[in-house]
Amino acid sequence: MAFEAARLSPSLAAAFRSHRAPPAPPFLLRLPLLLPRRFLRTSASSSAASAGGDGRAVALPSSELRKRRNSSSGTSPPAEDSKLRSLRRLFARPDIAIDAYIVPSQDAHQSEFIAECFMRRTYLTGFTGSAGTAVVTKNNAAFWTDGRYFLQAEKELSHDWTLMRSGNHGVPTTIEWLNDVLPSGCRVGIDPFLFSSDAAEELKNAISDKNHELILIRDLNLVDEIWGESRPEPPKEPTRVHDIKYAGVDVPSKLSFVRSQLAENGCDTVVISMLDEVAWLLNMRGSDVPHSPVFYSYLIVEMSTATLFVDSSKVSEEVLEHLKKAGVNLKPYEAILSDVERLAEKGANLWLDSSSVNAAIVSVFRSGCARYLKKRGKTGRQTGKESSSDEPTTTSHGVQNSAVNGLYQVSPVTLAKSIKNEAETVGMKNSHLRDAAALAEFWCWLEEEVHKNVVLTEVQVAENLLEFRRKQDGFIETSFDTISGYGANGAIIHYRPTLDSCSSIGSDNLFLLDSGAQYVDGTTDITRTVHFGEPSPRQKECFTRVLQGHIALDQAVFPERTPGFVLDVLARSSLWKIGLDYRHGTGHGVGAALNVHEGPQSISYRYGNLTALQKGMIVSNEPGYYEENSFGIRIENLLLVKEVNLANSFGGISYLGFEKLTFVPIQSKLMDLSLLSPSEINWVNEYHEQVWEKVSPFLSGSSRDWLWDNTRPL
Amino acid sequence: MAFEAARLSPSLAAAFRSHRAPPAPPFLLRLPLLLPRRFLRTSASSSAASAGGDGRAVALPSSELRKRRNSSSGTSPPAEDSKLRSLRRLFARPDIAIDAYIVPSQDAHQSEFIAECFMRRTYLTGFTGSAGTAVVTKNNAAFWTDGRYFLQAEKELSHDWTLMRSGNHGVPTTIEWLNDVLPSGCRVGIDPFLFSSDAAEELKNAISDKNHELILIRDLNLVDEIWGESRPEPPKEPTRVHDIKYAGVDVPSKLSFVRSQLAENGCDTVVISMLDEVAWLLNMRGSDVPHSPVFYSYLIVEMSTATLFVDSSKVSEEVLEHLKKAGVNLKPYEAILSDVERLAEKGANLWLDSSSVNAAIVSVFRSGCARYLKKRGKTGRQTGKESSSDEPTTTSHGVQNSAVNGLYQVSPVTLAKSIKNEAETVGMKNSHLRDAAALAEFWCWLEEEVHKNVVLTEVQVAENLLEFRRKQDGFIETSFDTISGYGANGAIIHYRPTLDSCSSIGSDNLFLLDSGAQYVDGTTDITRTVHFGEPSPRQKECFTRVLQGHIALDQAVFPERTPGFVLDVLARSSLWKIGLDYRHGTGHGVGAALNVHEGPQSISYRYGNLTALQKGMIVSNEPGYYEENSFGIRIENLLLVKEVNLANSFGGISYLGFEKLTFVPIQSKLMDLSLLSPSEINWVNEYHEQVWEKVSPFLSGSSRDWLWDNTRPL
Repeated sequence: MAFEAARLSPSLAAAFRSHRAPPAPPFLLRLPLLLPRRFLRTSASSSAASAGGDGRAVALPSSELRKRRNSSSGTSPPAEDSKLRSLRRLFARPDIAIDAYIVPSQDAHQSEFIAECFMRRTYLTGFTGSAGTAVVTKNNAAFWTDGRYFLQAEKELSHDWTLMRSGNHGVPTTIEWLNDVLPSGCRVGIDPFLFSSDAAEELKNAISDKNHELILIRDLNLVDEIWGESRPEPPKEPTRVHDIKYAGVDVPSKLSFVRSQLAENGCDTVVISMLDEVAWLLNMRGSDVPHSPVFYSYLIVEMSTATLFVDSSKVSEEVLEHLKKAGVNLKPYEAILSDVERLAEKGANLWLDSSSVNAAIVSVFRSGCARYLKKRGKTGRQTGKESSSDEPTTTSHGVQNSAVNGLYQVSPVTLAKSIKNEAETVGMKNSHLRDAAALAEFWCWLEEEVHKNVVLTEVQVAENLLEFRRKQDGFIETSFDTISGYGANGAIIHYRPTLDSCSSIGSDNLFLLDSGAQYVDGTTDITRTVHFGEPSPRQKECFTRVLQGHIALDQAVFPERTPGFVLDVLARSSLWKIGLDYRHGTGHGVGAALNVHEGPQSISYRYGNLTALQKGMIVSNEPGYYEENSFGIRIENLLLVKEVNLANSFGGISYLGFEKLTFVPIQSKLMDLSLLSPSEINWVNEYHEQVWEKVSPFLSGSSRDWLWDNTRPL
Repeated sequence: MAFEAARLSPSLAAAFRSHRAPPAPPFLLRLPLLLPRRFLRTSASSSAASAGGDGRAVALPSSELRKRRNSSSGTSPPAEDSKLRSLRRLFARPDIAIDAYIVPSQDAHQSEFIAECFMRRTYLTGFTGSAGTAVVTKNNAAFWTDGRYFLQAEKELSHDWTLMRSGNHGVPTTIEWLNDVLPSGCRVGIDPFLFSSDAAEELKNAISDKNHELILIRDLNLVDEIWGESRPEPPKEPTRVHDIKYAGVDVPSKLSFVRSQLAENGCDTVVISMLDEVAWLLNMRGSDVPHSPVFYSYLIVEMSTATLFVDSSKVSEEVLEHLKKAGVNLKPYEAILSDVERLAEKGANLWLDSSSVNAAIVSVFRSGCARYLKKRGKTGRQTGKESSSDEPTTTSHGVQNSAVNGLYQVSPVTLAKSIKNEAETVGMKNSHLRDAAALAEFWCWLEEEVHKNVVLTEVQVAENLLEFRRKQDGFIETSFDTISGYGANGAIIHYRPTLDSCSSIGSDNLFLLDSGAQYVDGTTDITRTVHFGEPSPRQKECFTRVLQGHIALDQAVFPERTPGFVLDVLARSSLWKIGLDYRHGTGHGVGAALNVHEGPQSISYRYGNLTALQKGMIVSNEPGYYEENSFGIRIENLLLVKEVNLANSFGGISYLGFEKLTFVPIQSKLMDLSLLSPSEINWVNEYHEQVWEKVSPFLSGSSRDWLWDNTRPL
């Protein structure tokens, strides 16, 4: 699935949310002559960063949600007026007393896909795209989104809103705008659950330039307040145990690992807030949000206990037993703040990943620490590791420069989760073969339909693909909304066809299909681009260049400790040679039966992410090329990082390479053989031979024939 | 010439000098899992930085100097005792009163090659290698150098010195060591002329952890004091005008450019301290140091005047006239401090590149500013641009946090100098053709000699090469000490043959020759590796892999704004595929009739240098492979960055590529054709065709025949 690298680092998502760095066309941002100091400072405070902020990846709502929203959007303009009016009325309430309110797209866990009840920004603005930030003052209402969504925002926003085209010349960031429209010394409110601690901190510092104060309104979300009765219920989907045969490592072992990390870092407690980290650590899965098998929860791990904060109605007897065996207690989801407060007040030394843990939790922790220290009559008990920034506050300046117990660094689960164990690897491989079988059946079917001149829209094709996948063992759902783009639609990187505005698949142009699935044992993500008629020489040239980049990255061998961005150029250089490029990253991490986008690694032209690619990590390999108003090309496989055995090992270190997980033919018709080197032709032939050997056993009849035809040597 | 990337950035040289980051084996340092915060902070304060400190590039003294030093080294052990004793006696002098003294390798201008009178570290320690730092306390004397020099240091240092093998496990940095051996609250002395302001600042902060104070001893250098009468005189070589036909742009135009930069940045004065920057800006050349056509001087450019601080005996009538025409005044070299003081006291707003301008100048400036502000009765007149760090002081804490007029950022000359104009480019091209002719004659001669079984040592070969070059028009000197390494010696990246310990060239192994010259119109730097007998399959495999890397980088096309490090992987990936690598950067900048190593650009695996490669820049392309105790391979050409005209220009930007400047055959015998792709074979054939066409007109007789034979298609 195509992505923008920034999304993979929570701190970057935060950077975008606070619109520090406007998402200028990524290409223009990527090669700064001199990196501004601000960026360097930012990267110092997080493990991964980017040379320029920009948009988040798609967070496509499920088609179900989309339909529901579409049906109500007809009446939105007058309704929105009243929403803004209601919101502003709340500004004046004595217990609130603010001059502006910021409504981001986030939930409390920095999730890519969120439950409908948390889509406050959508409710308030009427804008249904995935990325955007709304800011309302007493007199103004402005909405920021990036280039992917300008047209959609123009259509969906009412006249009460000013559309801020992030990245366009002269368009201010949210902070610049706030500092501009508000008179000095205003109170800017946020729901601290919806901002990571880092993001809130940055926002606070930036607006303090104009003496504005950041007000954390913890007890109520102002949009929920006006949403009222019509706000959907929070999801209550049941959770399930992720079988040890897929998880590979049991929960007690994982908890032991986390505790050893705590001990090593002089801490006694960690708060896990990312939903996929909780799911991974507890070998549990859920379905509270579309596409990601996660459930709304927090987890606190102490040295001898662990507590899962979750709605108990989601926990079956079996899950409860599973948790009990691992020594994990249950508490209500809402109890997280009071528990963090209790821990702080008893002097616990917490590990908090401030790039993902929300500002509500961190501020409660800091206040608690301050009370603890006051009680102990100390002015400071620094561990030498804690960050010294003062906390944002609900009243005036609150506790400032309080010495606190706290280690603010990337969660101990992030890296561990990204390095797949044997069972996870096997699950990924197996699910990819079943997924490949589904895709072979699908492509065989589609080719026949198109050749029979059956009219099929992009949406219908995506729905049929879902049916083919649904037949596979262990299928759960799609891992993201299918990107099904014919012709010019394929050039829109984050294209999402809708029922009322989508093309039909024909044989005159390229068809780009980026899709994936969640299986009980693994997660898939694959893109193929095909032509059902006669591709133009231009299309073949571009496709072949993209393929050469794909092959070069696939074949890369590199020393251990190499960050992904070092390899990015391999995927681009064949395109660069003819003056072409693509404006997205080349590879993102993928979870094992978890999120389709996960960190900390990436392969991107943004060279801020210094995480080394490590044995057991999974990354996508998805170079592309997009010719505006014409066609789009992307070729995506998932790759497993593995150690390679070579004749030499200079430096006495390991050398790493990739093993393919994805086995679906790449359309030979689109390759200009005169451009391919003998070794590239070998690569294609060997890949197709593997595809045939691995996937044909799952197929019969015409789809088996199709696979045979499409895996013949060049 | 092989190099270590760190050298190209003065701030990195500084980092090494203060031994903040121990120069661990570069390979181990290059791919850190997570970049330490310290590094990120450092890079924020300079325009270029590295993912890990390490050694400096070679700063080979001329052979003349070497001989002189060798002849006296026999008696060094007892002599050194007395040097340390004398030095420590000075510690106690009331006007000095220090507990430790640091003696770095630098001169006052961060020069790569320095005059003998400034080789204080060599005089004090007896160690003649290019890189190292000596630290003397009342009871200890320790010397840090990197892996290139361990053996040499063991041989040359007396027993009074503890050798600190930088980069070896458990070896402390100079700062760690100082903080360890000194009791809290000591006074650590330095000569502030020998530390860039940034380096002194870092040192000061680091030792303040143990409450040590950094003492800038400005009025005398303690080593000079004990060196006494025997210290060589400072060089008094005459300067010359660098002809406008080579310089391309006259001095008034260059000064105008600098003044426009000053105005743009809200300054009125700049102090230029790098010797090549002074030479470039004034279209002057000198010969105060070996290999670089520069002269000891400072330059101050104000809005209406400019002053060159130089020993007037170096300035002929012609040069004086040249300077007068450009409105440049002369003052004695030593007057720099008093002039900076005067400027500060009258409230001038100075631009100081604190990564290269020494701490003596910056501290005098800051004290002067403080006096100016005091006189004006102000507590601060911040320009919003100045760095707020307090100044190191000779007494106690001096003027702290004084608000000063100052812009501390990379010199306005650095980038301008790196982008060659038309005349400079033509001069570089012409001098490279003459250099290629000399090399063709040389290789033809050497091949014949070896085949006649004439015994020639590495040193003799280097001397003969010099003779061939000397015959070329406009030849001045070598641009660095020739690296002439046969067999196992070729595996020592910074090998320097000496008369008493060098091999003879035979036909049983590879011979690596890295050399360059200064011509009146350009600077060259070329490496070729040859075999006069039958290379082994292993040697051919390794050579071919290095060649593939060389070709891949040579052929690269990339969007404008691409930093050099993005391309580094292209030069390595063919080696990585078989588990090989090389422990140096791939490309450094080269001056036009100036320094053979110049910044700000580089092509390196250290991804801290974010300077984009720009049209008109010159870089070396020199991948290699070194098999310890066996052989060394390096293939080096110089390349000019140029705009390429392509069918597309995605993003509406320019795409850049390289044009070769170097035209000397690459030995076909060493290529394993079965490993080369058709396009790589084409590259070799086309290159050799160009070599023949461009260089044969300069040749006749046997060398012309040699060129013909060595440029036949594969």
